Amino acid sequence: MRLRYLSLCLAVLSANALAKTEQVRSPNGQIEVHISDDNHPHYSVFFQGKPVINESKLGFDFQTAPSFRDGFEIVSSSQDNVSSTWQQPWGEEREITDNHHELAVTFNNKAKQQAYTVRIRAFDDGIGFRYEVNNAKPLTVVRELTEFSVAQSEKATAWWIPARGWNRYEYVYNTTPLQQAQLVHTPFTFKNADNVHLSIHEAALVDYSAMVLDQRRPGTFVSNLTPWSDGTAVKTNGQFKTPWRTIQIAKDTVGLLNSRLILNLNEPNKLGDVSWVEPGKYVGIWWGMHINKNTWGSGDKHGATTANTKHYLDFAAKNGFDGVLVEGWNIGWDGDWFFNGDVFSFSKPYDDFDIEAIAQYGKKVGAKLIGHHETSGNVTNYRNQMTDAFELYAKNNVSQVKTGYVADGGNIKRIDADGIARYEWHDGQFMVNEYLDNVKLAAKYKISINTHEPIKDTGLRRTYPNWLAREGARGQEFNAWGTPPNPPEHTTMLAYTRMLAGPMDFTPGIFDMSFNGLGDQTNRPQTTLAKQLALYVVLYSPIQMAADLPENYEARPDAFQFIKDVPTDWEKSIALAGEVGDYVVYTRKAKKHKQYSGNDWFLGAITDEQARDIEVKLDFLEAGKRFEAQIYQDGKDAEWKWKPYELEVRKQIVTQQDTLSLHLATSGGVAIRFKAL
Amino acid sequence: MRLRYLSLCLAVLSANALAKTEQVRSPNGQIEVHISDDNHPHYSVFFQGKPVINESKLGFDFQTAPSFRDGFEIVSSSQDNVSSTWQQPWGEEREITDNHHELAVTFNNKAKQQAYTVRIRAFDDGIGFRYEVNNAKPLTVVRELTEFSVAQSEKATAWWIPARGWNRYEYVYNTTPLQQAQLVHTPFTFKNADNVHLSIHEAALVDYSAMVLDQRRPGTFVSNLTPWSDGTAVKTNGQFKTPWRTIQIAKDTVGLLNSRLILNLNEPNKLGDVSWVEPGKYVGIWWGMHINKNTWGSGDKHGATTANTKHYLDFAAKNGFDGVLVEGWNIGWDGDWFFNGDVFSFSKPYDDFDIEAIAQYGKKVGAKLIGHHETSGNVTNYRNQMTDAFELYAKNNVSQVKTGYVADGGNIKRIDADGIARYEWHDGQFMVNEYLDNVKLAAKYKISINTHEPIKDTGLRRTYPNWLAREGARGQEFNAWGTPPNPPEHTTMLAYTRMLAGPMDFTPGIFDMSFNGLGDQTNRPQTTLAKQLALYVVLYSPIQMAADLPENYEARPDAFQFIKDVPTDWEKSIALAGEVGDYVVYTRKAKKHKQYSGNDWFLGAITDEQARDIEVKLDFLEAGKRFEAQIYQDGKDAEWKWKPYELEVRKQIVTQQDTLSLHLATSGGVAIRFKAL
Repeated sequence: MRLRYLSLCLAVLSANALAKTEQVRSPNGQIEVHISDDNHPHYSVFFQGKPVINESKLGFDFQTAPSFRDGFEIVSSSQDNVSSTWQQPWGEEREITDNHHELAVTFNNKAKQQAYTVRIRAFDDGIGFRYEVNNAKPLTVVRELTEFSVAQSEKATAWWIPARGWNRYEYVYNTTPLQQAQLVHTPFTFKNADNVHLSIHEAALVDYSAMVLDQRRPGTFVSNLTPWSDGTAVKTNGQFKTPWRTIQIAKDTVGLLNSRLILNLNEPNKLGDVSWVEPGKYVGIWWGMHINKNTWGSGDKHGATTANTKHYLDFAAKNGFDGVLVEGWNIGWDGDWFFNGDVFSFSKPYDDFDIEAIAQYGKKVGAKLIGHHETSGNVTNYRNQMTDAFELYAKNNVSQVKTGYVADGGNIKRIDADGIARYEWHDGQFMVNEYLDNVKLAAKYKISINTHEPIKDTGLRRTYPNWLAREGARGQEFNAWGTPPNPPEHTTMLAYTRMLAGPMDFTPGIFDMSFNGLGDQTNRPQTTLAKQLALYVVLYSPIQMAADLPENYEARPDAFQFIKDVPTDWEKSIALAGEVGDYVVYTRKAKKHKQYSGNDWFLGAITDEQARDIEVKLDFLEAGKRFEAQIYQDGKDAEWKWKPYELEVRKQIVTQQDTLSLHLATSGGVAIRFKAL
Repeated sequence: MRLRYLSLCLAVLSANALAKTEQVRSPNGQIEVHISDDNHPHYSVFFQGKPVINESKLGFDFQTAPSFRDGFEIVSSSQDNVSSTWQQPWGEEREITDNHHELAVTFNNKAKQQAYTVRIRAFDDGIGFRYEVNNAKPLTVVRELTEFSVAQSEKATAWWIPARGWNRYEYVYNTTPLQQAQLVHTPFTFKNADNVHLSIHEAALVDYSAMVLDQRRPGTFVSNLTPWSDGTAVKTNGQFKTPWRTIQIAKDTVGLLNSRLILNLNEPNKLGDVSWVEPGKYVGIWWGMHINKNTWGSGDKHGATTANTKHYLDFAAKNGFDGVLVEGWNIGWDGDWFFNGDVFSFSKPYDDFDIEAIAQYGKKVGAKLIGHHETSGNVTNYRNQMTDAFELYAKNNVSQVKTGYVADGGNIKRIDADGIARYEWHDGQFMVNEYLDNVKLAAKYKISINTHEPIKDTGLRRTYPNWLAREGARGQEFNAWGTPPNPPEHTTMLAYTRMLAGPMDFTPGIFDMSFNGLGDQTNRPQTTLAKQLALYVVLYSPIQMAADLPENYEARPDAFQFIKDVPTDWEKSIALAGEVGDYVVYTRKAKKHKQYSGNDWFLGAITDEQARDIEVKLDFLEAGKRFEAQIYQDGKDAEWKWKPYELEVRKQIVTQQDTLSLHLATSGGVAIRFKAL
């Protein structure tokens, strides 16, 4: 019946002479959004005069209330233009520019007495829009009907991970024609036939469930909200605002990376004074367990002992690291912790872990214990102990905690008000609230949070600046045991996908790749040593781990020097060049902080399985200044499989006028400190 | 955390010395099913001593009741062996053998006072299992947790269509490594490294929602039940039996095709005397609209006129066809029928369609009007008129109706008890019941149903033998306008996937491929003429359409003779050879019926884009009998793109001792009538 249907579509669309369409453009005029009530509320997006998103519907289906589908007309609209800057207490950039044009349109269905507003903000780097609903009675959302109908989708290429799998966001990225993606997570990045790069995501995900994208028709994705255990998606009291549905748009790859769209759509800081939130670097009793030298549980290989922690605190203090993460310190790691995390105590250490002695020792040497709360997805058990747990840490000078929610997708266990076990998704509304409650409670104790197995980042670090970082992708640990380990292109993929959402605690810096043997058939980081250094600049995080064992750093002081020198808080960041999944080059200017002067620049470049020679113009450096470029690059014979360790460290005086020629080996990189002279 | 998790898994699994495992084997002992309460209820399946399905969990999550997950133990079991045959009133085979061994195991969770039974039937051609629950209070299922954990999945190949798309089941099949399938429909067919062919499906889908398969972990599919508009999946009163979850298992491809598993798991005929249900062949005012010669709506190209129908009735009667399908006869095809099917009347014809005159004319010439009810997915509008609609037809000698539910997946519109529009899936519980109610009501009027845009077939034709056929895949119409048309391998795919579920109203027999021009860049059947003939044997349906316009048949009496001769009701069917997506060879023995003697055999063979020479041993013929093989095969120069019409018709006397060498062109076929002498 398709042919007849199409001709009727056209007939109906042109029949409605009373239909209204409103428009808003970005400040530079290159992006245009149309929103219309013709036939069914819908929007479309244009870039440089060409459609990038075709007519895409808007709406909701509710559990009991009538749907928001057709029968709505635009009854009012308002505009607002904003041109401002604001400051981050920490970040990839201190000063953020927020220039946008806003259009808010109200749709009304007279017959059903329903209304909603769609607020659109058009920036030069993309758009965001959200629904605002003000219903007298509660509304339970079952489906959100937002479409993203990609123009000329048959020619588009996408880089994506599947959604609703067991392993949450921890997947290797796929590169396919866009039409082959079925159900995918955001950020969802793709490019069209004009090389316009786009990425669909959301900002300010609060008290709502996450959106995954569901390619219902070729090229048309529909928002697919992660459900509760009872099948509904979002429970509201009737007055709610959805997260911003965001579409980053750029004429090239670096335009995506240099966008601040997600942050600009988040609410300002709600925590007031956050001077206690500290970017920094850390080491930890962690990797040793992943490579089987130690155990989380008790026994003669127990990693989390007082003695071992002191050893790490010494190493941290000596080398300018702020803290030591210790995993396996608390009762519960023996036995079936994965199947029944109710065995975890968050305040009772093992006998060989003297937290008070460690706190004292840390104060003495000048490095802190970093806490660890692994829930294994049993969130009620954690919640019941959370206050006591934070109090224990606050009392012991712990100001940063890594949390964990190891559990299959769909298998977070909570105990409801009737004492019945319910199984939720990590990205359903329940957990979205649970993660944020944890962060808010931590703030009361001046504790910052680094969430593993998290909800995806949607920029809430602006509103809650103690939410420092999270995992939410395959990190370094997969190189210890993953099937497969992260492939050579993995981090060059992350840069254009996961990293658009916000900081990642990737935990770079593995120096010993030989623990299972070199080559390409073992579990190991599939990179060169230089690439491990470059990651400190390429993958932004306010907290960076030097993930390896101390002895492996002591064995390579030449390479380790870079890790000691690199800061984690930045005045400015600029993505200079790259292609998705191929390579990326970033430069960042250090922010004056702790031992870091505010004058140095840093550069990081990484490549995939292809070796690459790149030319980098240093025109980002300040005019009239001289810098000593301390260059850590792959040796001329380096290649990731058998010769990952070949590193060349050289120094060169440079100015803004210079261009550097850099060679990256296969799965290689280059890391540079431009030390101000 | 993966490594630690794995070692703990093993620790826990071996700890439970009180765990029980029960087993059942197929009559020939080649298939074995284990079911166990160790850690979490689960089952596994072995074929010829090797695992084909690894340990796979069982269970449910409910909307309010506690989940059926872990904590259950086997408290009782019972066995039953069945060895019987039964008769179909019509079908691919008259006598069906049902030999199986049954095991029913009851799981009990003492702490939560919950119990359920799993009933397993092991046949030589596969297994079926279902849950039986007898709860005092209603239970609303949100998730069914049945897993299908494919053994050695990294080496398996699958042939699949995506689920929950806009186009229901109407997709081109994908051939990929099994691990690349994300969310797929059933029948889901795959083969493993030992060439064992399996297909997962369900039987007797009644008052439950359809299961799609969701590859949650590599190789592990979980049942994903299609939800209601309120987010729940299955509403029950607490006492329910799920459909049978079926796994066909065969050492080769034809073992899948010769299986009767789905029928054997269905309930016997509930309709009593069904002598009024008639297999047969038909023509129709249908293709002309798809190729734009006619319109469904009124006007000078209106197809459904009294005069045109009489012309078709003449043609039908002259050529031994039983009926004439007429689409576009009823008020509602003008205007926006697709967007608001409430405009359809099911009892008011257009002015130029005199149904009573047509009924009389049909009686006179000896062919009947076949009815058409297109709902455009507005099922409440249809339901409100259904009784009147069937009464009109019964009064006018109509005994077969084609129904239609054209609407995007998830967009079937029903009006609930409060007058609110709700949007359901074609394969949710609501529609599963709606389709069956339609069939049951039709039976009261001695009307048989052919459902288009249906629920997938799960063998209910055994229980309701007036449910003759359905669409549920891309049929011939896609060759008129599809993007793309069905590719050359499409029907060789259908044979091993869609056709395992039951009959399909594919509507073969297009003789004129040139309506948009030949070649491979236009919309047209991408086959040779001989392949169109072969489809009458290869794609089983009790009702087969000669889909083209009468004049195109009159232009090729040589080819048309086969269509006139081929029956649609069979004594016996045997798939002889083939490979999934490549080729298939079927032979069938005619059942004595109407003008068809019960002595003839028929053979159909089709190939994909590759030409093929096949040898067919005629050992299926009865010993001591002679047959005239009337062979319709591709001419020696035939090839589908530019020379589809080259057909060679020859005759040859054959016996059981003979072997035929048959040449199939690219996307070609061969059709043979073995006329008993």
